[in-house]
Order: sequence, then structure tokens, then C-alpha cells
Amino acid sequence: MRRRQLRHAPVAVLLLAVISAGGAVGACARYGASLVWPTMPGTFPWTTWAVNTAGCAAIGVLMVLITDVRTVHPLVRPFLGTGVLGGFTTFSTYALDAQRLVDGGRTGLALAYLVLSVLAALGAVWAAAAAMRWFVARTRRVAGRRA
Amino acid sequence: MRRRQLRHAPVAVLLLAVISAGGAVGACARYGASLVWPTMPGTFPWTTWAVNTAGCAAIGVLMVLITDVRTVHPLVRPFLGTGVLGGFTTFSTYALDAQRLVDGGRTGLALAYLVLSVLAALGAVWAAAAAMRWFVARTRRVAGRRA
Repeated sequence: MRRRQLRHAPVAVLLLAVISAGGAVGACARYGASLVWPTMPGTFPWTTWAVNTAGCAAIGVLMVLITDVRTVHPLVRPFLGTGVLGGFTTFSTYALDAQRLVDGGRTGLALAYLVLSVLAALGAVWAAAAAMRWFVARTRRVAGRRA
Repeated sequence: MRRRQLRHAPVAVLLLAVISAGGAVGACARYGASLVWPTMPGTFPWTTWAVNTAGCAAIGVLMVLITDVRTVHPLVRPFLGTGVLGGFTTFSTYALDAQRLVDGGRTGLALAYLVLSVLAALGAVWAAAAAMRWFVARTRRVAGRRA
């Protein structure tokens, strides 16, 4: 047992390092977006909305890459999925944005933001995954014809 | 202009370092939660739900600390808010979880998960902020009586 733990330790350390690096990149990218497109109080939080929608589209692409394309390195998913995209997208800022809109008397806008975020996220995952599946199938057909 | 950029550069580097460290901690903590409480396919994604709810409660506490208690260090918000909690909570896994439930024919469960996540997040921000405000006010009353 001890020998097995020792053998697996570097893998766990590598995995945590990869997730840490991804989380750092994702959080900094989200912060960068909030600097470039700051949200004025009482207005629709477009930046968090766009960050979450883009992150959901990216995870749709990633999941198809991982499930349909077998040559993806095993550290790609923890780095990009758990790290970068998990760190880039946020639920805490989403809830806080909505809470602030309600506190400022903009309950209708808060509701629109809550619903539109979920709809855009689901639509983004679905559309990106479908587009990626089409692209992978097309690339394979072209490669099959050439072979 | 150049001199001002040079003077501000270490602050920006420190800020990015703090957000990176926070994002790394948050992403690793979320990954740890998914290892300790793995979600079986086709079941309610309790782990992501709990991670997002806990992260929203924590941001409710943090916002009251930052706005009501003035002695909080200026790097606390970027580290804990943007970094740790932004990296810990996730919208991409939330959307992917729901998409997978729909793909597996569990549309009702997906809808319940989508709605319950938003309701729990808002409730957590609100309740945690209210509890923290009460605690801060009580601590000040006690301190005032002693002074």
C-alpha cells in the first residue's frame, strides 16, 4: 500500500499542479475581462454573462474532443476543464450580481440576468458540442477519403 | 506616463499573483470535493450544487466584511473573491451537468438541478450576508458598551 502510494504520489502532484495552473489562468482571464469591460452598478452584468457563456461553449468543445478524439493527453481535461474553464466561469459572482440588482430595486433585470445566464450557458454547451461533433465527423470523412 | 506605469507595475503583478494563487486554491478545492463526493451519472449533481452554494454563502460573508469592516486588507477581495471563490464555484460544470442529465433522458432532474442551484445560490448569498451583518452589528454594540 505504501509502495503504491509512493508510486502514485507524483501523478497526484502533477494533477494538482496542472489544475492549479489552469485555475490561475482562468481566474486571471476572468479578472482581465472585468477590467476591460467593467459593469456599471444597476446595469445588466454583461461581462459575467459573456464569461460564463464563453466558458460553457468551450467546455462543450472540450467534452467532444475528450470523448470523440482519443489522442487527447490525459492532463488536458484537468487543466482545461477543471482548471481553466472551472476557474474562468463563476457562480459566486453570478449570484452576487443578481443579489446587488435586487438590492438596488432592479428585480426584473436580476430575474432576466438569472434566466438568460442559464439559457445561454445551456445553449452554448449544446451548440458548441454539436458544432464540434460535426467538425470531427467531417474531418474523419475527409481523412477517410484521402486514405 | 512611463514613470507611472513603472511605479504601478509591481501592484499589478502582485494583484495577478494573488488572483492566480486564489484561483489555484479554489480550483483544487473544487477538484478535491469531486474526488471525495463523486457524482454518479444520471443522479442529482450534489457536489457541484454544494460547491456553488457554499461559494455563494462565502461571497455573501466576504462582501459584508469588505463593505462594513474597513480594516480588511485591499488584497483580500481579489484573493478570496475573484480568486478562491471565483475559482471554486463554476458555471461550466453546472451547465455540463445539466446537459448530461438531458442527454441521459433525465430532463426533469436537469430542470430541478438548474432551478435549485440558482435558488440555493441566491438564498446562500442573502442569508450569509444578513447573518454577517447581524454579527458585525452585535460585535460593535458589545465593543461600544465596553469602551
